[in-house]
Amino acid sequence: MAQSAVKKVVLAYSGGLDTSVILKWLQEEYGCEVVTFTADIGQGEELEPARAKAQAAGVKEIYIDDLREEFVRDFVFPMFRANAIYEGEYLLGTSIARPLIAKRLIEIAAETGADAISHGATGKGNDQVRFELGAYALNPEIKIIAPWREWDLLSREKLMAYAEKHGIAVEMKRDGTKSPYSMDANLLHISYEGYDLEDPWVEPGEDMWRWSVSPEQAPDTPRTLELTYEKGDIVAIDGKAMSPAEVLAELNRIGGENGIGRADIVENRYVGMKSRGCYETPGGTIMLKAHRAIESLTLDREAAHLKDELMPRYASLIYNGYWFSPEREMLQAAIDKTQTVVNGVVRLKLYKGNVMVAGRKSETNSLFDSSIATFEEDAGAYDQKDATGFIRLNALRLRVQGRMKQ
Amino acid sequence: MAQSAVKKVVLAYSGGLDTSVILKWLQEEYGCEVVTFTADIGQGEELEPARAKAQAAGVKEIYIDDLREEFVRDFVFPMFRANAIYEGEYLLGTSIARPLIAKRLIEIAAETGADAISHGATGKGNDQVRFELGAYALNPEIKIIAPWREWDLLSREKLMAYAEKHGIAVEMKRDGTKSPYSMDANLLHISYEGYDLEDPWVEPGEDMWRWSVSPEQAPDTPRTLELTYEKGDIVAIDGKAMSPAEVLAELNRIGGENGIGRADIVENRYVGMKSRGCYETPGGTIMLKAHRAIESLTLDREAAHLKDELMPRYASLIYNGYWFSPEREMLQAAIDKTQTVVNGVVRLKLYKGNVMVAGRKSETNSLFDSSIATFEEDAGAYDQKDATGFIRLNALRLRVQGRMKQ
Amino acid sequence: MAQSAVKKVVLAYSGGLDTSVILKWLQEEYGCEVVTFTADIGQGEELEPARAKAQAAGVKEIYIDDLREEFVRDFVFPMFRANAIYEGEYLLGTSIARPLIAKRLIEIAAETGADAISHGATGKGNDQVRFELGAYALNPEIKIIAPWREWDLLSREKLMAYAEKHGIAVEMKRDGTKSPYSMDANLLHISYEGYDLEDPWVEPGEDMWRWSVSPEQAPDTPRTLELTYEKGDIVAIDGKAMSPAEVLAELNRIGGENGIGRADIVENRYVGMKSRGCYETPGGTIMLKAHRAIESLTLDREAAHLKDELMPRYASLIYNGYWFSPEREMLQAAIDKTQTVVNGVVRLKLYKGNVMVAGRKSETNSLFDSSIATFEEDAGAYDQKDATGFIRLNALRLRVQGRMKQ
Amino acid sequence: MAQSAVKKVVLAYSGGLDTSVILKWLQEEYGCEVVTFTADIGQGEELEPARAKAQAAGVKEIYIDDLREEFVRDFVFPMFRANAIYEGEYLLGTSIARPLIAKRLIEIAAETGADAISHGATGKGNDQVRFELGAYALNPEIKIIAPWREWDLLSREKLMAYAEKHGIAVEMKRDGTKSPYSMDANLLHISYEGYDLEDPWVEPGEDMWRWSVSPEQAPDTPRTLELTYEKGDIVAIDGKAMSPAEVLAELNRIGGENGIGRADIVENRYVGMKSRGCYETPGGTIMLKAHRAIESLTLDREAAHLKDELMPRYASLIYNGYWFSPEREMLQAAIDKTQTVVNGVVRLKLYKGNVMVAGRKSETNSLFDSSIATFEEDAGAYDQKDATGFIRLNALRLRVQGRMKQ
Repeated sequence: MAQSAVKKVVLAYSGGLDTSVILKWLQEEYGCEVVTFTADIGQGEELEPARAKAQAAGVKEIYIDDLREEFVRDFVFPMFRANAIYEGEYLLGTSIARPLIAKRLIEIAAETGADAISHGATGKGNDQVRFELGAYALNPEIKIIAPWREWDLLSREKLMAYAEKHGIAVEMKRDGTKSPYSMDANLLHISYEGYDLEDPWVEPGEDMWRWSVSPEQAPDTPRTLELTYEKGDIVAIDGKAMSPAEVLAELNRIGGENGIGRADIVENRYVGMKSRGCYETPGGTIMLKAHRAIESLTLDREAAHLKDELMPRYASLIYNGYWFSPEREMLQAAIDKTQTVVNGVVRLKLYKGNVMVAGRKSETNSLFDSSIATFEEDAGAYDQKDATGFIRLNALRLRVQGRMKQ
Repeated sequence: MAQSAVKKVVLAYSGGLDTSVILKWLQEEYGCEVVTFTADIGQGEELEPARAKAQAAGVKEIYIDDLREEFVRDFVFPMFRANAIYEGEYLLGTSIARPLIAKRLIEIAAETGADAISHGATGKGNDQVRFELGAYALNPEIKIIAPWREWDLLSREKLMAYAEKHGIAVEMKRDGTKSPYSMDANLLHISYEGYDLEDPWVEPGEDMWRWSVSPEQAPDTPRTLELTYEKGDIVAIDGKAMSPAEVLAELNRIGGENGIGRADIVENRYVGMKSRGCYETPGGTIMLKAHRAIESLTLDREAAHLKDELMPRYASLIYNGYWFSPEREMLQAAIDKTQTVVNGVVRLKLYKGNVMVAGRKSETNSLFDSSIATFEEDAGAYDQKDATGFIRLNALRLRVQGRMKQ
Repeated sequence: MAQSAVKKVVLAYSGGLDTSVILKWLQEEYGCEVVTFTADIGQGEELEPARAKAQAAGVKEIYIDDLREEFVRDFVFPMFRANAIYEGEYLLGTSIARPLIAKRLIEIAAETGADAISHGATGKGNDQVRFELGAYALNPEIKIIAPWREWDLLSREKLMAYAEKHGIAVEMKRDGTKSPYSMDANLLHISYEGYDLEDPWVEPGEDMWRWSVSPEQAPDTPRTLELTYEKGDIVAIDGKAMSPAEVLAELNRIGGENGIGRADIVENRYVGMKSRGCYETPGGTIMLKAHRAIESLTLDREAAHLKDELMPRYASLIYNGYWFSPEREMLQAAIDKTQTVVNGVVRLKLYKGNVMVAGRKSETNSLFDSSIATFEEDAGAYDQKDATGFIRLNALRLRVQGRMKQ
Repeated sequence: MAQSAVKKVVLAYSGGLDTSVILKWLQEEYGCEVVTFTADIGQGEELEPARAKAQAAGVKEIYIDDLREEFVRDFVFPMFRANAIYEGEYLLGTSIARPLIAKRLIEIAAETGADAISHGATGKGNDQVRFELGAYALNPEIKIIAPWREWDLLSREKLMAYAEKHGIAVEMKRDGTKSPYSMDANLLHISYEGYDLEDPWVEPGEDMWRWSVSPEQAPDTPRTLELTYEKGDIVAIDGKAMSPAEVLAELNRIGGENGIGRADIVENRYVGMKSRGCYETPGGTIMLKAHRAIESLTLDREAAHLKDELMPRYASLIYNGYWFSPEREMLQAAIDKTQTVVNGVVRLKLYKGNVMVAGRKSETNSLFDSSIATFEEDAGAYDQKDATGFIRLNALRLRVQGRMKQ
């Protein structure tokens, strides 16, 4: 599996400064043909400028794909069936997008006869791992070029200098301002790292956040919402059927308006250090709460508990880049097995950062039986005397031990 | 371990209607002496009326104990070290109080020479299990009388009739009104069950809640708060040292004022049915968020992940009543082992139901090293080239499998 | 779900003393019609005598089914895919047969219009739980009669007296002798409990064991064996294709001849006490060892490790009677997902109680790559320098902690 | 944490060919002073020749330590309290010795003012990881030289040539023959890798094995043995008190005589490939069986099950080199918490490869209560009617689901 000379490389290309420098650098250093691949995964940027830039850089094979539906249907939704959350706080917005990019890079490599892929992730982060594990799993012979681990352009200044030297345009961000933060966005979230976040005692300024208003600035009246679930996935909002990507876009919109989904955390990277990150995940925050609510009504206790016990492992697998692995597929099989009964409607109230469950129902799959749970007489639905035997046998081992101690 | 005639029984006695009826019923049905035990665990009711009522009922041995500090120090705080949360939503407010009551019942039985204990928990709920497992673990020979599983007073009407017949006063609730809900309170939370909550599609009215204002009614300006941690426990608020019970009381007060800690959930009882419950846990909601924040800075990644994987099991053990069990003690030993380094300060912003982390620091135990995490050059703190080997060896098994599939 | 009068009951009937007494007792006490169900699950007893006895007792609907193939194909084989072993020692021979019996009882109840089932398991054991959980899961309205928990025939003497009084023949065991042990057998194993086993310091006599010779008495020369696996199941022995039940019967025969599969253990029952049991599981012991061997060659490391971590839970579920439960089905889905690649051949050497792996190969699915594992130069298959980065990044968190401690 | 010039290095030195070449190579390549460290961890080789060779090579600081008691007391015994076994087969004999060597290397570096350590583990194996993770955890600033990952002596031929060129004696193995296998030994086991083992279908010849006779050649009569446990550790054999290292040495002797403890497995290395290894672990094989037997009598069911669920993780941590990690310490705290009650005696029968439990007892801590487990009437020790409620409440959730399906 040794690396050797490269003939053609597929580059995950955004059209921004970093990947434009990489494009040039690949052409120069490797002397090979570069294929660019630009994906719309809901990051909210126009893609056509990337095409123009790639053409200007002499790229002959340019791929620009709208992957939004595939992203939500095949990656985001399966992950939310698991109620996945990393380290109690992080909804895995960046992590879940990487395997899809890796998959498409490998597909394009096959289509174009490329023997290598390249990406713009740095050598300190998780994303390099996610791209490369995904790529290796799907094509074990692929060569991978990670410029940030090879070149010496390791500071912003050096990168700028290289760009200037090679006539690469250094543009402002999409909204006309230049953020001091390192950001990543897709349909599930936008993330911020670096700059003043490098001190975990410092609170970021309000102007950092881009997708949501603050709870303080959100409307003074709650927004009510009904989500319809089929087999664990949302298929309609307020009764209106929508595709997966439409669902997530709409929940982002509503959630962002109501100050929902901000997180400010210190997390543990797979490569070994702690890092500070801020995230906006409006739709995902709503989906997590709502999915737990519909499961609370329809899912068996022991299945739910087993899911909860497996979830941290599953979340770590995704965080660490093991989407295309036998162990993630094993866990997914177990999770999906439980979701056939997760059907019904959840009513939510959104208000200034809060997602509150205001009701849940399932005509076909509710396991809630008020005739059993009631405090009043239940006409034989449940024999309270059964509890005596239940307790006494569960206590037996504790009593035997208690005797031994005496 | 068979049950037989009872000589003297210690009753967990609140002075309310249910346990007053039980007191009478025990005297009548069992013809035995009754010792009453009334605990202050922060439920916010006066205890002296219970003494007077017990005396009036002819009770000679009356125990009234303030257990608030013991409750928070030995039960609530150890549980929060685990970030325990049941089924993703429930902070175990009722569950964690029961083993302390069981422990005290057994201690009083030993002091008074009683051979039995009794409690007012119904035959459909979790509390009977928690009381009785705790009691059996601590005294395997104790006899347990659970009137709700024995008598035929299974509706509110029958209970009222029995009370009237025996001259037991049926009073209004402490605040002069009579709640239609079944409630339980202690320093950690207040809970509501029954009545219109028996339909999980129905949202309870605002007048149900007693400890907190709604987010809508909370102040329009955020409240900032600094919590100081030592070995995983809060020892000071805004720099002022406090005892465990003082910490929790103060956080309840501040949290309640800011609309924090309401939950409306469907949960799975240990005895087998789903039930709907609403909870107010203002201080606990703050503590969970803050504890995760200080751990995020000070706890090792793998220790944190292992804690997360064990947590659902730990939470179920407490929910199910196994506080005094070898398996809970095993898990506690593992959890406590990790908490020696959990020292530092968390700054929070509370606003209309939201608990937001605004900073965390630890002079002695921070594992966050900005020289490693920085995007800028790090002067050798971390060699980006190491990531290549890291990824390639982690990918090796995936590549070998990929080859086999081809 | 209250119990009431019974019209017709399906009895799990062996024709032996206990179930013959139960048959009579049901007719007398419940005054209802009894349907008998006798299954061949490989216990090695003739079933026709059961038919004659049932007829003699006036039973009109008599079911005698050969369930051996279904037993091994749908219960034993799936369980062995998980490498299930309870408490490190017990191969679950009795446990795995019970859900099949429960399933058939419920099916026959539906066919015959019966409203109840009955079984001969005692009130102290696991089998009552397994029968009844299985039955309730498959038909929540079924009534269950467990005579051992209802009647007063709680000693052998009383049972004998009842039999004599009602003219029920008390016969010797199938081999003409009367064992002092309580025994249970099916294609997977035979078990022994009671009598001198009730002292865990006492070793049972050689004459207790029925299916295997002792290691001392086994042949002095090893027996070599090749097992062919497809998707985790054995499909051929020494190259000869066999059905699931044929495989297990043949492995029992060969294993028993070579002194394989005896276990003498103290186990923890679900109903709360410890009990001593001895087991002979010749074929199962061979299958466990062989399955691990073929997995060692074909299964991914992380899938294998996850299986190992889930296995104790899976084994407990089966032991406790939760075969027909959402959580067992979840785990089975995860396990089965991994077995598509478990194809190949295992060569074993059996010798006086030992099962020794003498080789394993898989033409289609081996992940063993000697060009990578070799100590000699590997022509680039694996770059040893990669290990440096692998170690350094895995060590990073430990180093940061080490610094903090200093 | 960058590597730079080395002043003094502590080398884990056996005196054999490989580490003698490394000693020379370090002196030549790094131009630094070398301190040698040779440990007796029960590998069964004389250490004084290592001293003479080191002196001849010009080494001034020579450490030769007898670490056998520390090895067994602080590493082997704690690991056996967990019933640790990797991938169902491997008793971790090599893995558990590495952290002790790492610890001693770091201690000697501190004593001698060395700034680096070095070892002879190859770049494809697990041992490099174990040495280095241990060393980094104990001294994050230490420099580590792994010659096998740096030099170009990657085949046996090149190594020989280098030795010859530098006048390094190439000796036969201790018993006068030269094994074609790569071997490692300590008090817990001896391992074999390479040569014909690189084909997993090939069975190794009888002359490979060094510590045990084959089952075929073992004595024709069983050997009975009694092991006394205190807090989970063996403190006496056949009533004779022994130190930890004495216990293990004696069990190795007896086990080896009786053909016990051979394993032939394919395992998954942490660095990503599968490898074939053969192991002799006579004493460890006996200890694992015996420890489970004494736990079966004295350990609570749920504690035992939790231990079983955590064990694979614990075993992987040791296999992967994370002995000195917060997560291993967490698990050890949990495990050790359970062992205070693991006291008693186990009687074993050893016969031609078999370790058979022939009895277990504990005067102080047995939880086996024959009055409860008996098939006969138990005079009220256990009320069989309790089982009805136990089953019915455990079945409740299954019944509710069953109804929903109907």
